[in-house]
Amino acid sequence: MRDLSDDKSLLSLNTATVREQWNLREMVEGCLRHGIGGISPWRDKVQECGVDEAARLIADSGLAVSGLCRGGMFPAADAAGRRAALDDNRRAVDEAVALGAECLVLVVGGLPDGSRDIAGARQQVEDGIGALLEYSRPAGVPLAIEPLHPMYAADRACINTMAQANDVCDVLGDDGLGIALDVYHVWWDPDLAAEITRAGKERILAFHVCDWLVPTNDLLLDRGMPGDGVIDIRGIRGLVEGVGYDGHCEVEILSTRWWAEDPNLIMQTLIERHQSVV
Amino acid sequence: MRDLSDDKSLLSLNTATVREQWNLREMVEGCLRHGIGGISPWRDKVQECGVDEAARLIADSGLAVSGLCRGGMFPAADAAGRRAALDDNRRAVDEAVALGAECLVLVVGGLPDGSRDIAGARQQVEDGIGALLEYSRPAGVPLAIEPLHPMYAADRACINTMAQANDVCDVLGDDGLGIALDVYHVWWDPDLAAEITRAGKERILAFHVCDWLVPTNDLLLDRGMPGDGVIDIRGIRGLVEGVGYDGHCEVEILSTRWWAEDPNLIMQTLIERHQSVV
Repeated sequence: MRDLSDDKSLLSLNTATVREQWNLREMVEGCLRHGIGGISPWRDKVQECGVDEAARLIADSGLAVSGLCRGGMFPAADAAGRRAALDDNRRAVDEAVALGAECLVLVVGGLPDGSRDIAGARQQVEDGIGALLEYSRPAGVPLAIEPLHPMYAADRACINTMAQANDVCDVLGDDGLGIALDVYHVWWDPDLAAEITRAGKERILAFHVCDWLVPTNDLLLDRGMPGDGVIDIRGIRGLVEGVGYDGHCEVEILSTRWWAEDPNLIMQTLIERHQSVV
Repeated sequence: MRDLSDDKSLLSLNTATVREQWNLREMVEGCLRHGIGGISPWRDKVQECGVDEAARLIADSGLAVSGLCRGGMFPAADAAGRRAALDDNRRAVDEAVALGAECLVLVVGGLPDGSRDIAGARQQVEDGIGALLEYSRPAGVPLAIEPLHPMYAADRACINTMAQANDVCDVLGDDGLGIALDVYHVWWDPDLAAEITRAGKERILAFHVCDWLVPTNDLLLDRGMPGDGVIDIRGIRGLVEGVGYDGHCEVEILSTRWWAEDPNLIMQTLIERHQSVV
Protein backbone atom coordinates (compact mmCIF):
# COMPACT_ATOMS: atom_id res chain seq x y z
CA MET A 1 0.00 0.00 0.00
CA ARG A 2 1.31 3.41 -0.90
CA ASP A 3 2.46 5.75 1.85
CA LEU A 4 0.53 9.02 1.42
CA SER A 5 1.66 10.58 4.69
CA ASP A 6 3.82 13.13 2.89
CA ASP A 7 2.08 13.05 -0.49
CA LYS A 8 0.14 15.70 -2.36
CA SER A 9 0.77 14.59 -5.92
CA LEU A 10 -1.68 11.67 -5.77
CA LEU A 11 -4.47 13.88 -4.48
CA SER A 12 -6.95 15.04 -7.11
CA LEU A 13 -9.60 17.70 -6.65
CA ASN A 14 -13.01 16.85 -8.02
CA THR A 15 -14.48 20.23 -8.86
CA ALA A 16 -17.79 19.40 -7.18
CA THR A 17 -15.97 19.84 -3.87
CA VAL A 18 -15.63 23.60 -4.30
CA ARG A 19 -18.13 24.19 -7.06
CA GLU A 20 -20.01 26.94 -5.24
CA GLN A 21 -16.89 28.94 -4.42
CA TRP A 22 -14.59 28.77 -7.44
CA ASN A 23 -14.68 28.73 -11.22
CA LEU A 24 -12.36 26.39 -13.12
CA ARG A 25 -9.52 28.92 -13.33
CA GLU A 26 -9.65 29.49 -9.59
CA MET A 27 -9.68 25.73 -9.02
CA VAL A 28 -6.62 25.18 -11.20
CA GLU A 29 -4.82 28.02 -9.46
CA GLY A 30 -5.90 26.62 -6.10
CA CYS A 31 -4.50 23.19 -6.93
CA LEU A 32 -1.18 24.72 -7.98
CA ARG A 33 -1.00 26.98 -4.95
CA HIS A 34 -1.61 24.07 -2.57
CA GLY A 35 0.55 21.62 -4.51
CA ILE A 36 -2.23 19.15 -5.34
CA GLY A 37 -1.39 16.87 -8.26
CA GLY A 38 -4.63 16.37 -10.09
CA ILE A 39 -8.03 17.74 -10.98
CA SER A 40 -11.26 16.13 -12.13
CA PRO A 41 -13.64 18.67 -13.60
CA TRP A 42 -17.38 18.46 -13.93
CA ARG A 43 -18.63 19.44 -17.35
CA ASP A 44 -20.56 22.46 -16.09
CA LYS A 45 -17.32 24.09 -14.99
CA VAL A 46 -15.65 23.19 -18.27
CA GLN A 47 -18.47 24.64 -20.34
CA GLU A 48 -18.67 27.77 -18.21
CA CYS A 49 -14.98 28.31 -18.96
CA GLY A 50 -15.21 27.17 -22.58
CA VAL A 51 -13.78 23.79 -23.57
CA ASP A 52 -10.77 25.16 -25.48
CA GLU A 53 -9.86 27.58 -22.74
CA ALA A 54 -10.32 24.89 -20.09
CA ALA A 55 -8.06 22.54 -22.03
CA ARG A 56 -5.37 25.22 -22.38
CA LEU A 57 -5.63 26.20 -18.72
CA ILE A 58 -5.24 22.64 -17.51
CA ALA A 59 -2.49 21.74 -19.98
CA ASP A 60 -0.51 24.81 -18.92
CA SER A 61 -0.97 23.90 -15.27
CA GLY A 62 0.61 20.48 -15.61
CA LEU A 63 -2.16 18.99 -13.47
CA ALA A 64 -3.18 15.41 -14.14
CA VAL A 65 -6.83 15.05 -15.14
CA SER A 66 -8.01 12.02 -13.21
CA GLY A 67 -11.41 12.07 -14.87
CA LEU A 68 -14.16 14.09 -16.48
CA CYS A 69 -17.52 14.09 -14.66
CA ARG A 70 -19.75 13.03 -16.16
CA GLY A 71 -21.37 11.12 -18.99
CA GLY A 72 -24.20 8.66 -18.59
CA MET A 73 -27.92 9.24 -17.96
CA PHE A 74 -28.72 6.73 -20.69
CA PRO A 75 -32.28 5.56 -19.95
CA ALA A 76 -35.11 7.54 -21.48
CA ALA A 77 -38.81 7.05 -22.04
CA ASP A 78 -38.46 6.96 -25.83
CA ALA A 79 -35.97 6.50 -28.65
CA ALA A 80 -35.57 10.24 -29.20
CA GLY A 81 -34.58 10.66 -25.57
CA ARG A 82 -32.05 7.85 -25.83
CA ARG A 83 -30.57 9.38 -29.01
CA ALA A 84 -30.26 12.75 -27.31
CA ALA A 85 -28.51 11.11 -24.36
CA LEU A 86 -26.09 9.34 -26.68
CA ASP A 87 -25.36 12.58 -28.56
CA ASP A 88 -24.59 14.33 -25.31
CA ASN A 89 -22.35 11.47 -24.25
CA ARG A 90 -20.40 11.75 -27.50
CA ARG A 91 -19.84 15.44 -26.75
CA ALA A 92 -18.60 14.43 -23.30
CA VAL A 93 -16.10 12.08 -24.97
CA ASP A 94 -14.91 14.97 -27.16
CA GLU A 95 -14.43 17.11 -24.07
CA ALA A 96 -12.52 14.32 -22.34
CA VAL A 97 -10.21 14.14 -25.36
CA ALA A 98 -9.72 17.91 -25.31
CA LEU A 99 -8.86 17.87 -21.60
CA GLY A 100 -6.68 14.78 -21.72
CA ALA A 101 -8.87 13.15 -19.09
CA GLU A 102 -7.83 9.70 -17.95
CA CYS A 103 -11.44 8.55 -18.12
CA LEU A 104 -15.00 9.72 -18.61
CA VAL A 105 -16.99 8.90 -15.47
CA LEU A 106 -20.46 7.51 -16.18
CA VAL A 107 -23.36 8.16 -13.84
CA VAL A 108 -25.54 5.84 -15.81
CA GLY A 109 -29.04 7.15 -15.07
CA GLY A 110 -32.07 5.77 -13.29
CA LEU A 111 -35.66 5.04 -14.23
CA PRO A 112 -37.18 6.92 -17.16
CA ASP A 113 -40.05 9.22 -16.18
CA GLY A 114 -43.09 7.21 -15.17
CA SER A 115 -41.29 3.88 -15.28
CA ARG A 116 -41.12 1.23 -12.55
CA ASP A 117 -39.06 -1.14 -14.70
CA ILE A 118 -35.61 -1.13 -13.17
CA ALA A 119 -34.52 -4.24 -15.08
CA GLY A 120 -35.47 -2.43 -18.29
CA ALA A 121 -33.53 0.66 -17.24
CA ARG A 122 -30.49 -1.50 -16.59
CA GLN A 123 -30.77 -2.99 -20.04
CA GLN A 124 -30.98 0.52 -21.52
CA VAL A 125 -27.81 1.42 -19.64
CA GLU A 126 -25.96 -1.58 -21.01
CA ASP A 127 -27.17 -0.80 -24.52
CA GLY A 128 -26.24 2.87 -24.14
CA ILE A 129 -22.73 2.13 -22.93
CA GLY A 130 -22.34 -0.36 -25.76
CA ALA A 131 -23.30 2.30 -28.29
CA LEU A 132 -21.04 4.91 -26.69
CA LEU A 133 -18.07 2.53 -26.76
CA GLU A 134 -18.18 2.60 -30.56
CA TYR A 135 -17.33 6.29 -30.28
CA SER A 136 -15.13 6.36 -27.20
CA ARG A 137 -12.84 3.46 -28.14
CA PRO A 138 -11.50 5.06 -31.33
CA ALA A 139 -11.24 8.34 -29.42
CA GLY A 140 -9.08 6.65 -26.80
CA VAL A 141 -11.24 7.69 -23.85
CA PRO A 142 -11.86 4.95 -21.28
CA LEU A 143 -15.39 4.92 -19.87
CA ALA A 144 -15.59 4.45 -16.10
CA ILE A 145 -18.91 3.12 -14.83
CA GLU A 146 -19.55 4.55 -11.40
CA PRO A 147 -21.80 2.36 -9.27
CA LEU A 148 -23.92 4.75 -7.24
CA HIS A 149 -25.38 4.08 -3.81
CA PRO A 150 -28.73 2.25 -4.00
CA MET A 151 -30.48 5.36 -2.66
CA TYR A 152 -29.89 6.84 -6.15
CA ALA A 153 -31.28 3.85 -8.05
CA ALA A 154 -34.48 5.62 -9.04
CA ASP A 155 -33.20 8.94 -10.26
CA ARG A 156 -29.44 8.88 -10.83
CA ALA A 157 -27.96 5.46 -11.45
CA CYS A 158 -29.47 1.98 -11.59
CA ILE A 159 -26.01 0.43 -11.43
CA ASN A 160 -25.60 0.25 -7.67
CA THR A 161 -22.92 -2.31 -6.92
CA MET A 162 -19.46 -3.27 -8.08
CA ALA A 163 -20.94 -6.63 -9.10
CA GLN A 164 -23.28 -4.96 -11.58
CA ALA A 165 -20.49 -2.82 -12.99
CA ASN A 166 -18.29 -5.89 -13.36
CA ASP A 167 -21.16 -7.70 -15.07
CA VAL A 168 -21.49 -4.90 -17.64
CA CYS A 169 -17.74 -5.02 -18.27
CA ASP A 170 -18.01 -8.79 -18.75
CA VAL A 171 -20.73 -8.33 -21.34
CA LEU A 172 -19.25 -5.39 -23.25
CA GLY A 173 -15.57 -6.22 -22.96
CA ASP A 174 -12.76 -4.53 -21.08
CA ASP A 175 -11.39 -2.57 -24.03
CA GLY A 176 -11.92 1.08 -23.10
CA LEU A 177 -14.30 0.22 -20.25
CA GLY A 178 -13.85 0.05 -16.50
CA ILE A 179 -15.14 1.26 -13.15
CA ALA A 180 -14.90 4.39 -11.02
CA LEU A 181 -15.05 3.30 -7.39
CA ASP A 182 -16.31 5.91 -4.95
CA VAL A 183 -16.15 4.72 -1.35
CA TYR A 184 -19.33 6.65 -0.54
CA HIS A 185 -21.39 4.44 -2.81
CA VAL A 186 -19.95 1.01 -2.08
CA TRP A 187 -18.62 1.00 1.49
CA TRP A 188 -21.66 -0.91 2.80
CA ASP A 189 -21.46 -3.70 0.20
CA PRO A 190 -20.68 -7.10 1.77
CA ASP A 191 -19.27 -8.24 -1.59
CA LEU A 192 -16.95 -5.24 -1.97
CA ALA A 193 -13.64 -7.02 -1.44
CA ALA A 194 -14.57 -9.89 -3.74
CA GLU A 195 -15.78 -7.56 -6.48
CA ILE A 196 -12.65 -5.39 -6.28
CA THR A 197 -10.61 -8.54 -6.74
CA ARG A 198 -12.83 -9.50 -9.65
CA ALA A 199 -12.39 -6.04 -11.21
CA GLY A 200 -8.64 -6.08 -10.84
CA LYS A 201 -6.17 -3.38 -11.79
CA GLU A 202 -7.32 -3.20 -15.39
CA ARG A 203 -10.89 -2.21 -14.58
CA ILE A 204 -10.44 0.19 -11.67
CA LEU A 205 -9.99 3.47 -13.52
CA ALA A 206 -10.68 5.90 -10.70
CA PHE A 207 -10.83 5.95 -6.92
CA HIS A 208 -13.02 8.60 -5.26
CA VAL A 209 -13.17 9.41 -1.58
CA CYS A 210 -15.41 11.27 0.82
CA ASP A 211 -17.21 10.00 3.93
CA TRP A 212 -20.61 8.83 5.14
CA LEU A 213 -21.85 11.03 7.97
CA VAL A 214 -24.04 9.86 10.84
CA PRO A 215 -26.60 11.27 10.68
CA THR A 216 -26.83 12.02 6.96
CA ASN A 217 -29.33 14.82 6.55
CA ASP A 218 -29.70 14.95 2.79
CA LEU A 219 -29.55 12.18 0.21
CA LEU A 220 -27.39 14.21 -2.17
CA LEU A 221 -25.64 17.13 -0.51
CA ASP A 222 -24.49 15.91 2.90
CA ARG A 223 -21.32 14.00 2.14
CA GLY A 224 -18.51 14.24 4.62
CA MET A 225 -14.84 15.16 4.56
CA PRO A 226 -12.72 11.98 4.75
CA GLY A 227 -12.34 11.11 8.42
CA ASP A 228 -15.55 12.75 9.56
CA GLY A 229 -17.72 9.69 8.94
CA VAL A 230 -17.85 5.93 9.29
CA ILE A 231 -16.23 4.65 6.10
CA ASP A 232 -13.05 2.63 6.48
CA ILE A 233 -11.44 4.60 3.65
CA ARG A 234 -7.94 3.30 4.20
CA GLY A 235 -9.23 -0.26 4.25
CA ILE A 236 -10.89 0.22 0.88
CA ARG A 237 -7.79 1.95 -0.53
CA GLY A 238 -5.88 -1.09 0.63
CA LEU A 239 -8.22 -3.28 -1.38
CA VAL A 240 -7.90 -1.31 -4.62
CA GLU A 241 -4.15 -0.92 -4.25
CA GLY A 242 -3.99 -4.59 -3.40
CA VAL A 243 -5.10 -5.36 -6.95
CA GLY A 244 -2.68 -2.82 -8.38
CA TYR A 245 -4.50 0.51 -8.53
CA ASP A 246 -1.86 3.22 -8.81
CA GLY A 247 -3.86 6.29 -9.79
CA HIS A 248 -5.04 9.33 -7.90
CA CYS A 249 -7.21 9.57 -4.81
CA GLU A 250 -9.88 11.95 -6.01
CA VAL A 251 -11.87 13.86 -3.41
CA GLU A 252 -15.48 14.53 -4.35
CA ILE A 253 -17.57 16.07 -1.58
CA LEU A 254 -21.04 17.32 -2.41
CA SER A 255 -21.93 19.21 0.74
CA THR A 256 -23.87 22.36 1.40
CA ARG A 257 -21.93 22.61 4.65
CA TRP A 258 -18.52 22.60 2.96
CA TRP A 259 -19.74 24.83 0.14
CA ALA A 260 -20.19 27.53 2.78
CA GLU A 261 -16.52 27.33 3.83
CA ASP A 262 -13.41 29.16 2.64
CA PRO A 263 -12.10 27.09 -0.30
CA ASN A 264 -8.48 27.50 0.78
CA LEU A 265 -9.36 26.02 4.16
CA ILE A 266 -11.01 23.14 2.29
CA MET A 267 -7.86 22.59 0.23
CA GLN A 268 -5.73 22.49 3.38
CA THR A 269 -8.17 20.08 5.01
CA LEU A 270 -8.20 17.84 1.93
CA ILE A 271 -4.42 17.57 2.03
CA GLU A 272 -4.37 16.88 5.76
CA ARG A 273 -7.00 14.15 5.45
CA HIS A 274 -5.39 12.70 2.32
CA GLN A 275 -2.21 12.26 4.32
CA SER A 276 -3.75 11.03 7.57
CA VAL A 277 -7.03 9.26 6.81
CA VAL A 278 -7.16 8.23 3.16
CA MET B 1 -51.01 -14.73 -7.43
CA ARG B 2 -53.77 -13.78 -5.05
CA ASP B 3 -56.50 -11.42 -6.19
CA LEU B 4 -56.62 -8.53 -3.72
CA SER B 5 -59.02 -6.38 -5.73
CA ASP B 6 -61.85 -6.94 -3.27
CA ASP B 7 -59.75 -7.88 -0.24
CA LYS B 8 -59.28 -6.18 3.09
CA SER B 9 -58.54 -9.18 5.27
CA LEU B 10 -54.96 -9.58 4.00
CA LEU B 11 -54.15 -5.94 4.68
CA SER B 12 -52.29 -5.30 7.91
CA LEU B 13 -51.66 -1.92 9.50
CA ASN B 14 -48.17 -1.32 10.78
CA THR B 15 -48.67 1.15 13.58
CA ALA B 16 -45.83 3.38 12.37
CA THR B 17 -48.16 4.46 9.57
CA VAL B 18 -50.45 6.41 11.93
CA ARG B 19 -48.22 6.65 14.95
CA GLU B 20 -48.53 10.41 15.33
CA GLN B 21 -52.33 10.41 15.19
CA TRP B 22 -53.55 7.38 17.14
CA ASN B 23 -52.77 5.34 20.22
CA LEU B 24 -53.01 1.55 20.05
CA ARG B 25 -56.67 1.46 21.09
CA GLU B 26 -57.59 3.94 18.36
CA MET B 27 -55.59 1.91 15.83
CA VAL B 28 -57.37 -1.32 16.75
CA GLU B 29 -60.73 0.44 16.56
CA GLY B 30 -59.70 1.98 13.24
CA CYS B 31 -58.78 -1.40 11.78
CA LEU B 32 -62.12 -2.85 12.86
CA ARG B 33 -64.09 0.16 11.59
CA HIS B 34 -62.44 -0.05 8.19
CA GLY B 35 -62.48 -3.85 8.01
CA ILE B 36 -58.72 -4.33 7.86
CA GLY B 37 -57.62 -7.83 8.84
CA GLY B 38 -54.35 -7.36 10.65
CA ILE B 39 -52.17 -5.11 12.75
CA SER B 40 -48.45 -4.98 13.41
CA PRO B 41 -47.63 -2.87 16.44
CA TRP B 42 -44.41 -1.14 17.30
CA ARG B 43 -43.29 -1.70 20.86
CA ASP B 44 -43.61 1.96 21.84
CA LYS B 45 -47.37 1.79 21.24
CA VAL B 46 -47.64 -1.51 23.12
CA GLN B 47 -45.75 -0.16 26.10
CA GLU B 48 -47.70 3.09 26.13
CA CYS B 49 -50.88 0.99 26.35
CA GLY B 50 -49.38 -1.59 28.70
CA VAL B 51 -48.51 -5.05 27.42
CA ASP B 52 -51.37 -6.87 29.15
CA GLU B 53 -53.96 -4.35 28.08
CA ALA B 54 -52.58 -4.36 24.52
CA ALA B 55 -52.76 -8.14 24.41
CA ARG B 56 -56.37 -8.11 25.66
CA LEU B 57 -57.36 -5.35 23.25
CA ILE B 58 -55.93 -7.15 20.25
CA ALA B 59 -57.23 -10.58 21.27
CA ASP B 60 -60.72 -9.16 21.70
CA SER B 61 -60.53 -7.48 18.31
CA GLY B 62 -59.87 -10.69 16.43
CA LEU B 63 -57.19 -8.92 14.39
CA ALA B 64 -54.27 -10.98 13.17
CA VAL B 65 -50.90 -9.75 14.46
CA SER B 66 -48.63 -9.96 11.45
CA GLY B 67 -45.59 -8.97 13.46
CA LEU B 68 -44.17 -7.06 16.38
CA CYS B 69 -41.76 -4.22 15.55
CA ARG B 70 -39.06 -4.47 16.59
CA GLY B 71 -36.19 -6.34 18.13
CA GLY B 72 -32.60 -6.12 16.99
CA MET B 73 -29.99 -3.38 17.50
CA PHE B 74 -27.47 -6.03 18.50
CA PRO B 75 -24.04 -4.39 17.92
CA ALA B 76 -22.57 -2.43 20.77
CA ALA B 77 -19.18 -1.02 21.66
CA ASP B 78 -18.72 -3.35 24.64
CA ALA B 79 -19.97 -6.55 26.23
CA ALA B 80 -22.25 -4.71 28.65
CA GLY B 81 -23.96 -3.01 25.73
CA ARG B 82 -24.42 -6.31 23.93
CA ARG B 83 -25.87 -7.90 27.08
CA ALA B 84 -28.31 -5.00 27.50
CA ALA B 85 -29.38 -5.40 23.87
CA LEU B 86 -29.94 -9.11 24.34
CA ASP B 87 -31.98 -8.50 27.51
CA ASP B 88 -34.17 -6.02 25.69
CA ASN B 89 -34.62 -8.48 22.83
CA ARG B 90 -35.77 -11.15 25.27
CA ARG B 91 -38.39 -8.72 26.57
CA ALA B 92 -39.47 -8.16 22.98
CA VAL B 93 -39.91 -11.91 22.57
CA ASP B 94 -42.06 -11.95 25.73
CA GLU B 95 -44.21 -9.17 24.29
CA ALA B 96 -44.53 -11.03 20.99
CA VAL B 97 -45.78 -14.06 22.93
CA ALA B 98 -48.28 -11.94 24.86
CA LEU B 99 -49.63 -10.40 21.66
CA GLY B 100 -49.67 -13.63 19.67
CA ALA B 101 -47.47 -11.99 17.02
CA GLU B 102 -46.63 -14.12 14.01
CA CYS B 103 -43.02 -12.95 14.19
CA LEU B 104 -40.68 -10.52 15.90
CA VAL B 105 -39.19 -8.23 13.26
CA LEU B 106 -35.47 -7.58 13.72
CA VAL B 107 -33.89 -4.30 12.71
CA VAL B 108 -30.46 -5.65 13.44
CA GLY B 109 -28.48 -2.50 14.19
CA GLY B 110 -25.57 -0.70 12.55
CA LEU B 111 -22.08 0.28 13.58
CA PRO B 112 -21.33 0.70 17.28
CA ASP B 113 -20.43 4.27 18.27
CA GLY B 114 -17.04 5.22 16.92
CA SER B 115 -16.64 2.06 14.84
CA ARG B 116 -15.84 1.79 11.14
CA ASP B 117 -15.81 -2.01 11.23
CA ILE B 118 -18.92 -3.07 9.34
CA ALA B 119 -17.75 -6.66 9.00
CA GLY B 120 -17.37 -6.77 12.77
CA ALA B 121 -20.85 -5.31 13.25
CA ARG B 122 -22.25 -7.99 10.97
CA GLN B 123 -20.57 -10.66 13.04
CA GLN B 124 -22.06 -9.15 16.20
CA VAL B 125 -25.47 -9.29 14.57
CA GLU B 126 -25.09 -12.94 13.70
CA ASP B 127 -23.89 -13.72 17.22
CA GLY B 128 -26.74 -11.71 18.74
CA ILE B 129 -29.42 -13.44 16.69
CA GLY B 130 -27.85 -16.78 17.57
CA ALA B 131 -28.06 -15.96 21.27
CA LEU B 132 -31.63 -14.68 20.99
CA LEU B 133 -32.73 -17.84 19.18
CA GLU B 134 -31.99 -19.82 22.34
CA TYR B 135 -34.76 -17.81 23.99
CA SER B 136 -37.15 -17.29 21.09
CA ARG B 137 -37.26 -20.89 19.85
CA PRO B 138 -38.63 -22.35 23.09
CA ALA B 139 -41.02 -19.37 23.27
CA GLY B 140 -42.32 -20.21 19.80
CA VAL B 141 -41.68 -16.74 18.36
CA PRO B 142 -40.12 -16.72 14.88
CA LEU B 143 -37.48 -14.03 14.37
CA ALA B 144 -37.76 -12.15 11.08
CA ILE B 145 -34.55 -10.48 9.92
CA GLU B 146 -35.46 -7.33 8.01
CA PRO B 147 -32.80 -6.33 5.49
CA LEU B 148 -32.76 -2.53 5.54
CA HIS B 149 -31.83 -0.27 2.64
CA PRO B 150 -28.06 0.31 2.43
CA MET B 151 -28.61 3.96 3.36
CA TYR B 152 -29.27 2.67 6.90
CA ALA B 153 -26.14 0.50 7.07
CA ALA B 154 -24.31 2.85 9.44
CA ASP B 155 -26.96 3.56 12.02
CA ARG B 156 -29.88 1.14 11.77
CA ALA B 157 -29.08 -2.18 10.12
CA CYS B 158 -25.93 -3.60 8.62
CA ILE B 159 -27.92 -6.41 6.99
CA ASN B 160 -28.84 -4.69 3.76
CA THR B 161 -29.75 -7.36 1.24
CA MET B 162 -31.83 -10.51 1.02
CA ALA B 163 -28.60 -12.37 0.28
CA GLN B 164 -27.14 -11.38 3.65
CA ALA B 165 -30.33 -12.37 5.47
CA ASN B 166 -30.35 -15.70 3.67
CA ASP B 167 -26.72 -16.20 4.61
CA VAL B 168 -27.52 -15.67 8.30
CA CYS B 169 -30.40 -18.15 8.06
CA ASP B 170 -28.03 -20.65 6.44
CA VAL B 171 -25.58 -20.27 9.31
CA LEU B 172 -28.06 -20.27 12.21
CA GLY B 173 -30.66 -22.67 10.82
CA ASP B 174 -34.22 -22.12 9.69
CA ASP B 175 -35.88 -23.22 12.92
CA GLY B 176 -37.62 -20.13 14.26
CA LEU B 177 -35.73 -17.81 11.91
CA GLY B 178 -36.67 -16.11 8.66
CA ILE B 179 -36.92 -12.80 6.84
CA ALA B 180 -39.23 -9.79 6.76
CA LEU B 181 -39.16 -8.41 3.23
CA ASP B 182 -40.03 -4.73 2.90
CA VAL B 183 -40.16 -3.59 -0.73
CA TYR B 184 -38.78 -0.18 0.27
CA HIS B 185 -35.49 -1.69 1.29
CA VAL B 186 -34.90 -4.25 -1.45
CA TRP B 187 -36.64 -3.03 -4.63
CA TRP B 188 -33.34 -1.83 -6.15
CA ASP B 189 -31.49 -5.14 -5.62
CA PRO B 190 -30.55 -6.85 -8.90
CA ASP B 191 -30.46 -10.19 -7.05
CA LEU B 192 -33.92 -9.77 -5.52
CA ALA B 193 -35.74 -12.44 -7.54
CA ALA B 194 -32.98 -14.99 -7.07
CA GLU B 195 -32.77 -14.36 -3.33
CA ILE B 196 -36.55 -14.60 -2.88
CA THR B 197 -36.39 -17.96 -4.60
CA ARG B 198 -33.51 -18.94 -2.35
CA ALA B 199 -35.49 -17.86 0.74
CA GLY B 200 -38.60 -19.75 -0.28
CA LYS B 201 -41.92 -19.90 1.52
CA GLU B 202 -40.43 -21.12 4.77
CA ARG B 203 -38.20 -18.10 5.31
CA ILE B 204 -40.43 -15.24 4.18
CA LEU B 205 -42.25 -14.44 7.39
CA ALA B 206 -43.56 -10.97 6.55
CA PHE B 207 -44.15 -8.78 3.50
CA HIS B 208 -44.13 -5.01 4.01
CA VAL B 209 -45.14 -2.39 1.48
CA CYS B 210 -44.77 1.33 0.95
CA ASP B 211 -43.19 3.21 -1.94
CA TRP B 212 -39.99 5.01 -2.94
CA LEU B 213 -40.72 8.62 -3.81
CA VAL B 214 -38.82 10.66 -6.39
CA PRO B 215 -37.49 12.89 -5.03
CA THR B 216 -37.03 11.45 -1.54
CA ASN B 217 -36.45 14.36 0.80
CA ASP B 218 -35.52 12.57 3.99
CA LEU B 219 -33.65 9.33 4.56
CA LEU B 220 -36.09 8.12 7.21
CA LEU B 221 -39.42 9.91 7.14
CA ASP B 222 -40.32 10.37 3.47
CA ARG B 223 -41.71 7.01 2.48
CA GLY B 224 -44.58 6.98 0.03
CA MET B 225 -48.07 5.50 -0.07
CA PRO B 226 -48.08 2.44 -2.36
CA GLY B 227 -48.60 3.69 -5.90
CA ASP B 228 -47.09 7.12 -5.34
CA GLY B 229 -43.53 6.04 -6.12
CA VAL B 230 -41.42 3.93 -8.43
CA ILE B 231 -41.43 0.48 -6.83
CA ASP B 232 -42.99 -2.33 -8.83
CA ILE B 233 -44.85 -3.52 -5.74
CA ARG B 234 -47.09 -5.96 -7.56
CA GLY B 235 -44.11 -7.47 -9.31
CA ILE B 236 -42.38 -8.10 -5.98
CA ARG B 237 -45.59 -9.48 -4.45
CA GLY B 238 -45.70 -11.83 -7.42
CA LEU B 239 -42.22 -13.02 -6.55
CA VAL B 240 -42.96 -13.72 -2.88
CA GLU B 241 -46.30 -15.34 -3.65
CA GLY B 242 -44.57 -17.28 -6.38
CA VAL B 243 -42.59 -19.10 -3.72
CA GLY B 244 -45.71 -19.60 -1.61
CA TYR B 245 -46.02 -16.59 0.68
CA ASP B 246 -49.61 -16.48 1.88
CA GLY B 247 -49.50 -13.98 4.74
CA HIS B 248 -50.56 -10.38 5.09
CA CYS B 249 -49.48 -7.33 3.10
CA GLU B 250 -48.39 -5.02 5.88
CA VAL B 251 -48.30 -1.31 5.17
CA GLU B 252 -45.56 0.58 6.97
CA ILE B 253 -45.21 4.22 5.95
CA LEU B 254 -42.92 6.47 7.95
CA SER B 255 -43.81 9.87 6.58
CA THR B 256 -44.09 13.30 8.11
CA ARG B 257 -46.41 14.15 5.24
CA TRP B 258 -48.87 11.35 5.98
CA TRP B 259 -48.59 11.87 9.72
CA ALA B 260 -50.18 15.27 9.15
CA GLU B 261 -53.25 13.71 7.50
CA ASP B 262 -56.59 12.50 8.87
CA PRO B 263 -55.96 8.86 9.90
CA ASN B 264 -59.34 7.73 8.59
CA LEU B 265 -58.43 9.12 5.17
CA ILE B 266 -55.15 7.20 5.43
CA MET B 267 -57.04 3.97 6.22
CA GLN B 268 -59.30 4.48 3.20
CA THR B 269 -56.31 5.18 1.01
CA LEU B 270 -54.46 2.11 2.31
CA ILE B 271 -57.42 -0.08 1.37
CA GLU B 272 -57.76 1.49 -2.08
CA ARG B 273 -54.05 1.06 -2.82
CA HIS B 274 -54.00 -2.46 -1.35
CA GLN B 275 -56.71 -3.41 -3.81
CA SER B 276 -55.38 -1.55 -6.85
CA VAL B 277 -51.61 -1.26 -6.59
CA VAL B 278 -50.26 -3.85 -4.15
